[in-house]
Amino acid sequence: MSSQPSSATVRAAVLPAPNVPPEVRSYPLPAMEEGAVLLRTIASEVCGTDVHLHHGHLAGVPYPLIPGHVSIGSVEIVQGTVQDVEGRPILPGDVVTFLDVHGTCNACWYCLVARATTRCPHRRVYGITYGADDGPGLAGGWSERIYLRPQTRIIRLAEGVSPDDWIGAGCGLPTAVHAIELARIGLGDRVLIQGSGPVGLSACVLALLSGAGWVGMIGAPELRLKAARRFGADWTTDVTATTADERKQAVRDATGGRGADIVIEASGNPLAVPEGCELVRDAGRYVIVGQYTDHGDVAINPHLHINKKHLEIRGCWGSDFSHVYRAMEILARFGRRIDWSALISRRYGLEEVGQALADVEAQRVVKAVIVP
Amino acid sequence: MSSQPSSATVRAAVLPAPNVPPEVRSYPLPAMEEGAVLLRTIASEVCGTDVHLHHGHLAGVPYPLIPGHVSIGSVEIVQGTVQDVEGRPILPGDVVTFLDVHGTCNACWYCLVARATTRCPHRRVYGITYGADDGPGLAGGWSERIYLRPQTRIIRLAEGVSPDDWIGAGCGLPTAVHAIELARIGLGDRVLIQGSGPVGLSACVLALLSGAGWVGMIGAPELRLKAARRFGADWTTDVTATTADERKQAVRDATGGRGADIVIEASGNPLAVPEGCELVRDAGRYVIVGQYTDHGDVAINPHLHINKKHLEIRGCWGSDFSHVYRAMEILARFGRRIDWSALISRRYGLEEVGQALADVEAQRVVKAVIVP
Amino acid sequence: MSSQPSSATVRAAVLPAPNVPPEVRSYPLPAMEEGAVLLRTIASEVCGTDVHLHHGHLAGVPYPLIPGHVSIGSVEIVQGTVQDVEGRPILPGDVVTFLDVHGTCNACWYCLVARATTRCPHRRVYGITYGADDGPGLAGGWSERIYLRPQTRIIRLAEGVSPDDWIGAGCGLPTAVHAIELARIGLGDRVLIQGSGPVGLSACVLALLSGAGWVGMIGAPELRLKAARRFGADWTTDVTATTADERKQAVRDATGGRGADIVIEASGNPLAVPEGCELVRDAGRYVIVGQYTDHGDVAINPHLHINKKHLEIRGCWGSDFSHVYRAMEILARFGRRIDWSALISRRYGLEEVGQALADVEAQRVVKAVIVP
Amino acid sequence: MSSQPSSATVRAAVLPAPNVPPEVRSYPLPAMEEGAVLLRTIASEVCGTDVHLHHGHLAGVPYPLIPGHVSIGSVEIVQGTVQDVEGRPILPGDVVTFLDVHGTCNACWYCLVARATTRCPHRRVYGITYGADDGPGLAGGWSERIYLRPQTRIIRLAEGVSPDDWIGAGCGLPTAVHAIELARIGLGDRVLIQGSGPVGLSACVLALLSGAGWVGMIGAPELRLKAARRFGADWTTDVTATTADERKQAVRDATGGRGADIVIEASGNPLAVPEGCELVRDAGRYVIVGQYTDHGDVAINPHLHINKKHLEIRGCWGSDFSHVYRAMEILARFGRRIDWSALISRRYGLEEVGQALADVEAQRVVKAVIVP
Repeated sequence: MSSQPSSATVRAAVLPAPNVPPEVRSYPLPAMEEGAVLLRTIASEVCGTDVHLHHGHLAGVPYPLIPGHVSIGSVEIVQGTVQDVEGRPILPGDVVTFLDVHGTCNACWYCLVARATTRCPHRRVYGITYGADDGPGLAGGWSERIYLRPQTRIIRLAEGVSPDDWIGAGCGLPTAVHAIELARIGLGDRVLIQGSGPVGLSACVLALLSGAGWVGMIGAPELRLKAARRFGADWTTDVTATTADERKQAVRDATGGRGADIVIEASGNPLAVPEGCELVRDAGRYVIVGQYTDHGDVAINPHLHINKKHLEIRGCWGSDFSHVYRAMEILARFGRRIDWSALISRRYGLEEVGQALADVEAQRVVKAVIVP
Repeated sequence: MSSQPSSATVRAAVLPAPNVPPEVRSYPLPAMEEGAVLLRTIASEVCGTDVHLHHGHLAGVPYPLIPGHVSIGSVEIVQGTVQDVEGRPILPGDVVTFLDVHGTCNACWYCLVARATTRCPHRRVYGITYGADDGPGLAGGWSERIYLRPQTRIIRLAEGVSPDDWIGAGCGLPTAVHAIELARIGLGDRVLIQGSGPVGLSACVLALLSGAGWVGMIGAPELRLKAARRFGADWTTDVTATTADERKQAVRDATGGRGADIVIEASGNPLAVPEGCELVRDAGRYVIVGQYTDHGDVAINPHLHINKKHLEIRGCWGSDFSHVYRAMEILARFGRRIDWSALISRRYGLEEVGQALADVEAQRVVKAVIVP
Repeated sequence: MSSQPSSATVRAAVLPAPNVPPEVRSYPLPAMEEGAVLLRTIASEVCGTDVHLHHGHLAGVPYPLIPGHVSIGSVEIVQGTVQDVEGRPILPGDVVTFLDVHGTCNACWYCLVARATTRCPHRRVYGITYGADDGPGLAGGWSERIYLRPQTRIIRLAEGVSPDDWIGAGCGLPTAVHAIELARIGLGDRVLIQGSGPVGLSACVLALLSGAGWVGMIGAPELRLKAARRFGADWTTDVTATTADERKQAVRDATGGRGADIVIEASGNPLAVPEGCELVRDAGRYVIVGQYTDHGDVAINPHLHINKKHLEIRGCWGSDFSHVYRAMEILARFGRRIDWSALISRRYGLEEVGQALADVEAQRVVKAVIVP
Repeated sequence: MSSQPSSATVRAAVLPAPNVPPEVRSYPLPAMEEGAVLLRTIASEVCGTDVHLHHGHLAGVPYPLIPGHVSIGSVEIVQGTVQDVEGRPILPGDVVTFLDVHGTCNACWYCLVARATTRCPHRRVYGITYGADDGPGLAGGWSERIYLRPQTRIIRLAEGVSPDDWIGAGCGLPTAVHAIELARIGLGDRVLIQGSGPVGLSACVLALLSGAGWVGMIGAPELRLKAARRFGADWTTDVTATTADERKQAVRDATGGRGADIVIEASGNPLAVPEGCELVRDAGRYVIVGQYTDHGDVAINPHLHINKKHLEIRGCWGSDFSHVYRAMEILARFGRRIDWSALISRRYGLEEVGQALADVEAQRVVKAVIVP
């Protein structure tokens, strides 16, 4: 119990309501429940979802909200005994992160019968569906302290993994780990990524690490495509500067005329879906992981795009602890080869959260980080 | 070499061109190639694809055409030695059927690297892509004789399986065997079938035989839904007499409020696809096997229908010999329980082919059979 | 909270120590914890594991022990709110059963990273690894009351399923559901079962319900083989009356000379394993689910039995709630076709537990049931 | 048809019979069949199987034999049109290799129903089951010319892949590609390789390329372990200098106390199998690919090693063309990072074949190559 926090209050950036400018507010420290952990925040991510939260695009969000679902902190208080998945105790001073999803019930039909835990109706997400006024509070990372409720899945940063590595990778890395799990890449497979945001960039890296024979990316802006090429992407193209026909031709040229063995959609644009169906080869696999908010319908042709194509499509929702765990393993092992921290374009204090959201929305940065 | 066919010619029903009435024409017997087999036709199926062929809806069909891709015959001539997959010789007098797909090359990238043999570009289909004038000819079942080229995959009717059983099941059964393979039904799973044509009815039966806990069907007309219920379907509804909302509510009521664990689309209607995405539960599986011709685009919502739903979608194209083989095993084993031959509504001579096509198109029959 | 139990004590049959005769002892009712449920026992199974418990063959068993891991009871007390997996409350008077495994932690590496919950080191089993003196007590089914600790996975008997159906199926059914899940039977597959105890008999039934084309069984005594044939097994043979060569020849004869597509070992005899490797076809699948206690080593030939055979072997340990849930669905759906209750050979009171164990050990009964 | 070979005869190294010294003999050039290809041999591998052939350990080998199943040559004659899997013609002057397995029938039950083509009973292997006196002859690589029969699966060396790369990798690489396919390595998985011969070394490399989090190897001699470490193995140990307990402890220490997620057996020693069962974690996966000849039985414990362990074991036999194709893709992509040609320890002329066999048997070389 190294450093008992002062009785002074905790400052946090808050989204008061949709489309209302963020504010810095002060909160009292929660009373510690048995099994809870208090973190002194080191860094917290700003991701595309936060922009959606700012604009009120997600249903069921309990504003006011302290955003920040992927965060790093040093442990300040551990109430009782808390262990990681290896059974080792979490101790004050440990630098840790945690699965942002909390409350997966392990008791409902989706958890126990379908084994589809990312569809458990009881799951809540730090910084997204736990509001600032939901007791005991401090449930988001854009705050000097984060209160981790009992049963939060905590993981220590592995040796050699810095907070910048983890935050540079951000929520995009576990999300991409899940998508790659469904993609089942074989050695030498040709893999195309749609979208160059954090999920797309991580999927690109993970496809390369999985032994893909060729990895291409369709995205924008050039800043991000450049990052992909630096990671090792074989081919990138700017979606804003090419036509769908040009892209199709280019992908065919790179894949023996057939299309990619595997396509991973990480763009968030519904139009990417029919295009992806065109870019994947017959009897290929198409993982759709980028459609995290509802941007409406899109037209597909069931005969040409799915049935005759003998296509496998895998929608991919959420992450579980295994994806966070594997993300940490990957950073520990490949961090020297792949510099995720280089994705961090700029750091922002709590007062600069509005600027951070604007920069992410305008894609002026690859990764924005809040340093409370 | 029991009965050498007379030098007289062979009569066959022919589709001269799209939307031109069928005619009966006469053809010479082909010279037998080494490894070829000549069948005296016992019966040949009329399926929905034949209606599409009549109207010219399929690309690349070499008219004039002798239709009839699923057929039964008794062996009249075997040129040289021909064996079945068990290594037993095919002999004159054997009553056999055969995989309608011929020429899968076992030498191209799709056959050898992707192991996606139903996407081999060299495959041809008796009665569909082999024309009446393609040498050596007699490549369709609406004919007194069928010429089976070397390497045609031939299978004897199993003991206890009658020609009516096989033709009653028709091409729908192997197609459904393939769909069920992709559906991976677990014991107790709730399975919904969209479409009540031959593929849908076979999928219904196979879901029941696979141990599904509940099998529902959406289709029309009542004649076919009744057949489904006779096979054992737990619930059917007439798609022409209900709204999508009513169907969704009914399926939810039957599935614990969640939707079906597995949905199999066998309707051919593009609108079935977004509806199927609504009727399947989160993290469920959706097999799309009915979109065999291009009926245009349909609107889906990638966020709600695929990504958030964590849905697996499997397009299913064509059949290979394993599906024909398993179909025969199924008929042999379950034929006493499931009377596929009862699906045969009417038999037609070669001169009545036009009537048969009209009856199938109008859904006045479940299964029409040509008896040359 | 219908019937508050009297202050009188609860009688239970107890195994005091390995190889010591069972006794009937009295225990006080535990104080109810929040989330706990008290059952008035209707029936409890005697299975082969109980014989092993009697002889001290299992490690880590905390004697004295109230055995009985699969049981049925009527709910007497519910402390607080307890729900089933569908979110419906468990209420007094409900007739329920429960997953005998308790305490799977959902927090360790095996639960969260490997998703191998049956290998969670924290799991405990009612009637096996919870002892009679472990508070709060009454943790086995050979007792007038069973105390279900908080987080026990409870399931109501489905409509049409009687206590006799459930107990007749017993722990063998969920175990077999797990084995069949790993067996991935395709329609028409030829399946061989080794062993005719409760697991083997259930595996036989489930293989039939899964659409197997042929199901054979090797076992003993004739009483059990007869039960298998009544369920629909195509072929059975008495392992005590035939040689391995004779059995191999018979299985080859029934499977086109190749061996069974899938073999499921449910015998508990190590010698069954090399024999199973001989009886399965090349590139087949072999599920080993019967080796629940250590009966020593056996010789196999890695070249002939595994490598050259291109064999898939799946060890199968334990059950989770999904297997219990599916077992209930199966009983509800197929109970009219398959009479599991007919497996019950005899019922025993608490004082007759010694006799029950002796009868099971001597295989004089298929299924023995304790009725406290 | 660049260079018509002279009428002069072709010299080849021959194994006259088991345990008889190899000789150099002369053979006439075969008459070219339609679809056949004649290669001028550039290099041919000596592998462990050749030592077994020399000692007569394999059944069904038609001595005298020209060994050499993995070979590289330049095309001298193409009779008619021969294409690769992409449909591009094979032309004189092309530098090619080929799948050593020939004659997989695509017509039998194993090919068509089980889709287990490496268990097709009709497959033959160049240099192993085609003898020197089987017409048309020249069916092994230790010869100045190799006659490729029609339907041989030929593949051009990819750009940037040298004959030394391909032969350095040898038959071990496609074999390991197959094993890795069955191993289904996830990002971060800990993988242990048993055996440091060509298959083990390739499996080690492929596990690394697949994103394994840790790769260990148990083998000998040091020369080969050093090669593994140079490829990137995290840990190696000399099987001749350690006890099984020491190895078990070391693997546990490297894997969080649990054992490896995946173990790949590539040693050929039956004793490796029970040890592998000890070294893999519960619910892990064990691929057995090294037991290519019969070295007798070994004792395993079905309870501890398979059932309680919830272990998946996959026997892996042979390679198909997809494995050769992927092997070429891997060499083309990763050849700069992984120097397979460095595995070549020494080259031998046809007269030195006896020395080559002796050196391989004594493990004095990692890879021996015949340069006719």
